Amino acid sequence: MKKNNSGKLKIIPLGGLEQIGMNITAFEYEDSIVVVDCGLSFPEDDMLGIDLVIPDITYLKDNYQKIKGFVITHGHEDHIGALPYVLREINVPIYATKLTIGLIENKLKEHNLLRTTKRKTIKHGQSINLGCFRIEFIKTNHSIADASALAIYSPAGIVVHTGDFKVDYTPVFGDAIDLQRFAEIGKKGVLALMCDSTNAERKGFTMSERTVGRTIDNLFAEHKNTRIIIATFASNVDRVQQIINSAYKYGRKVVVEGRSMVNVITTASELGYLNIPDKTLIDIDEMKNYPDEQTVLITTGSQGESMAALSRMASNIHKKVSIKPGDTIIFSSNPIPGNEKAVSRVINELSSMGADVIFQDVHVSGHACQEEIKLIYSLVKPQYAIPVHGEYRHLKAQAGLAEELGIPKENIFIMSCGDVMELNSESAAVTGKVHTGAILVDGLGVGDVGNIVLRDRQHLAEDGIMIVVLTLEKYSNQLLAGPDIVSRGFVYVRESEDLMGQAKSVVEDAIDSCLDRRISDWGKMKSVIKDSLGEFLWKRTKRRPMILPIIMEA
Amino acid sequence: MKKNNSGKLKIIPLGGLEQIGMNITAFEYEDSIVVVDCGLSFPEDDMLGIDLVIPDITYLKDNYQKIKGFVITHGHEDHIGALPYVLREINVPIYATKLTIGLIENKLKEHNLLRTTKRKTIKHGQSINLGCFRIEFIKTNHSIADASALAIYSPAGIVVHTGDFKVDYTPVFGDAIDLQRFAEIGKKGVLALMCDSTNAERKGFTMSERTVGRTIDNLFAEHKNTRIIIATFASNVDRVQQIINSAYKYGRKVVVEGRSMVNVITTASELGYLNIPDKTLIDIDEMKNYPDEQTVLITTGSQGESMAALSRMASNIHKKVSIKPGDTIIFSSNPIPGNEKAVSRVINELSSMGADVIFQDVHVSGHACQEEIKLIYSLVKPQYAIPVHGEYRHLKAQAGLAEELGIPKENIFIMSCGDVMELNSESAAVTGKVHTGAILVDGLGVGDVGNIVLRDRQHLAEDGIMIVVLTLEKYSNQLLAGPDIVSRGFVYVRESEDLMGQAKSVVEDAIDSCLDRRISDWGKMKSVIKDSLGEFLWKRTKRRPMILPIIMEA
Repeated sequence: MKKNNSGKLKIIPLGGLEQIGMNITAFEYEDSIVVVDCGLSFPEDDMLGIDLVIPDITYLKDNYQKIKGFVITHGHEDHIGALPYVLREINVPIYATKLTIGLIENKLKEHNLLRTTKRKTIKHGQSINLGCFRIEFIKTNHSIADASALAIYSPAGIVVHTGDFKVDYTPVFGDAIDLQRFAEIGKKGVLALMCDSTNAERKGFTMSERTVGRTIDNLFAEHKNTRIIIATFASNVDRVQQIINSAYKYGRKVVVEGRSMVNVITTASELGYLNIPDKTLIDIDEMKNYPDEQTVLITTGSQGESMAALSRMASNIHKKVSIKPGDTIIFSSNPIPGNEKAVSRVINELSSMGADVIFQDVHVSGHACQEEIKLIYSLVKPQYAIPVHGEYRHLKAQAGLAEELGIPKENIFIMSCGDVMELNSESAAVTGKVHTGAILVDGLGVGDVGNIVLRDRQHLAEDGIMIVVLTLEKYSNQLLAGPDIVSRGFVYVRESEDLMGQAKSVVEDAIDSCLDRRISDWGKMKSVIKDSLGEFLWKRTKRRPMILPIIMEA
Repeated sequence: MKKNNSGKLKIIPLGGLEQIGMNITAFEYEDSIVVVDCGLSFPEDDMLGIDLVIPDITYLKDNYQKIKGFVITHGHEDHIGALPYVLREINVPIYATKLTIGLIENKLKEHNLLRTTKRKTIKHGQSINLGCFRIEFIKTNHSIADASALAIYSPAGIVVHTGDFKVDYTPVFGDAIDLQRFAEIGKKGVLALMCDSTNAERKGFTMSERTVGRTIDNLFAEHKNTRIIIATFASNVDRVQQIINSAYKYGRKVVVEGRSMVNVITTASELGYLNIPDKTLIDIDEMKNYPDEQTVLITTGSQGESMAALSRMASNIHKKVSIKPGDTIIFSSNPIPGNEKAVSRVINELSSMGADVIFQDVHVSGHACQEEIKLIYSLVKPQYAIPVHGEYRHLKAQAGLAEELGIPKENIFIMSCGDVMELNSESAAVTGKVHTGAILVDGLGVGDVGNIVLRDRQHLAEDGIMIVVLTLEKYSNQLLAGPDIVSRGFVYVRESEDLMGQAKSVVEDAIDSCLDRRISDWGKMKSVIKDSLGEFLWKRTKRRPMILPIIMEA
């Protein structure tokens, strides 16, 4: 790798900035592109009916030949979830650590892409050469095992990308974050640091995952005489490990419930990331053979997701588990912003069934707080700071920290998706913009729901629809049938016969006036119907249902 | 008032239990009913298009002759908001303190009910006789001035109802909560305590409103050179007073923006609850005549409500205020559960416009935490505990506190809406159930949107609608026109011509098969169309739009 002082590295985030999720960033130097992460995001409240959101990768398609591969920092959905969709368009190799590759392979299997996708498992400390880049994987800690930071060596200098991380000096599985290596690379001189901003507003230091283990142990000690049900994030393998440890210690059998929980636990134990003592795990159907105080159920649903196992138990529609008075139910999680009400609903349902619900202080975050962020900056000592992973407020909070640590304000960049940042040791600036966006996935449809369809769904959701149908004779324009009015989601028709009757007269008058005036342009006729019916309904109800006139010709 | 040992008092909550909002409770003794509060609640996420929710008062209508009046504890929407709707059906007098009556009168004016509604202003310490009840208003503190607890004297004993409250030893306006009176009544012997549960999960003591004043003062001192914009709850008159105090101290003019903020401030200052120094308040149009560092704007929108003034500023669509880099924007509020994401969106927008957004620790709650709840129990020493105001989890948390304080478990009642509790000093039990429910208000419609309409809206929101229209000849059942297919909110039709074309063939085949088989029952024909089109779309898209076949006859 030659040091080329005049060349510049381009950093192009295609997602993941000013939002949570959908992380994907291109690093480009001359003819080489390396893409870091390829995540999805979950739909916003106004994206009605949408299942998930993936990044628009037009820029990558346009530069397909340059792309050397995907480098993935860890196995969370917001970092790997878009791969099955993106790989259909850009089939390049994937590089990641063992558990991350394992979780990606689960996805590839589901999407029938396993055979056609090249992938390579990388160990922490190891480097790979991709075009003119060298990428080194550095051990970090996070709420999923095998998370990596990346040192991206380019001819223009080194970029350190933390991925999602925290500093855990006493992790449950494997080593602590490799702070020495961050320092060593820092000593060499780092061009830019791209550091996780998720918790940049929070003071202090995120507690070790191990502290949750002690809390869980105490809860098991306090609730020796009841069944225990614990909900947590499926991907938090270390959390699951600690629950299993407590279960084993207190002589309880472990049942795992919820599809994603079963999947992750299976993969993690096959790959050696989870150590389950013999005869500890039992099937959900065997649970009835053990007394309550000898079982613990680990389940999905810690975010109040309506179809998850715990929510089904709370609504009494779970096929195999009924909540009983006295059950101890532990939320080993905090609600993700936006899920507060759903979680609260489940807590209310469970406690009104007589369960003892524990939902405070049985969780720690997987992201670095302010003191950890400062630590990484102080080890890496970058020339430029580019906060990543977070909404604008989080990026700005990290920018503030960077400034406090002495990085000149003009060397701190809050980028937006699509910004093209060009940098080397001489200078750094956003020099251009590439096309980016969010592609909505609804069922099997990828990108077939856009703004117009969403606006219609919002309109329908708000006030329903009123359909006016009529049949006209082709040549004479004479009214052959109708007008009929059908509504859905507007009023309960049987109890609003008056209103519906009057609406019909309004439409009939509108049609008569059109036919009298010999209006034969159907577009015109439709807009007359729309306007007069719309005005009538607004006056009477102060609502604006979608009005859809349909004219047929016979 | 005769003491009648055999008679029993009935307590019937018609709303407000196991939910936040819609507080309304009937107290009944023989031929007398007194109704405490008459609030609305805001729609749940699945109540699409609904503006607000009011209680079903069938029970009150059925017992109209017994009702002596509404007694209102304070002027928040969840305690007064349903009055304009309920008064149309039950026209009885309203009793409340001065500011509460003032805010109710604003509502009555809007709904043209001022002339027909009797209302009486009561002072703290004063009592009124209503049938066989005597109701005493006791001074409390809350996030709105003039809040009251009630001592409800009945022949069966005294019930103390706290309303929403906190203990503020150093309130901004008026006196601290009248703890002595609680103690005095407690000494007489209290049958039941109905105490606010909102913060029953929170340890400790809620800080005095005055502490927020100091924080605001400090923020004004720190941001002497910028414009200051503060968002808070319109009804928190004391908060507004403290902002005005700081503004006056630092030589700033005050602008008030947002309809509800203007309304409350006008009413509160007319009634003497707000003291605004001369020449401090200026009109929003005058703001341009003052340098930024001499103005402060108090605005609605602290909950990220999309139409509120601050949200419009954040989206750059406010007509009179544009956010500038350097503006200091303070959220003097915490997000109410469910509003977290909306608030976060506004914070992101404002900070990306370059404003300095402050949103932590400029607020205190208006509700009692655990130590305050314990204090009230210890002063009142009730025979029975009936936690009120809160979701199940909150009621249960208070029940736990009551038990800790020595109230026997069998004397603690977590009631549900509609439960009829009968009690006197001999016994207490839920003995029956009355009809209750939530009535949805959508525009001018009260109760015309029910479960069927909501289910349709949810279906439409999720996957849109596909309408199939055809015209049949009346006698021959021959196809005269169509089938035409029109969709909304399903796919972007122009880019899905193939799919739509195939859908049309599927429908044509279905109709042909019906006509071939001489099916003349339109219901049957519609269900054949629905099934075949539904199956086709599910296979192709994994979506289930609403399918609406419309058959016309000519």
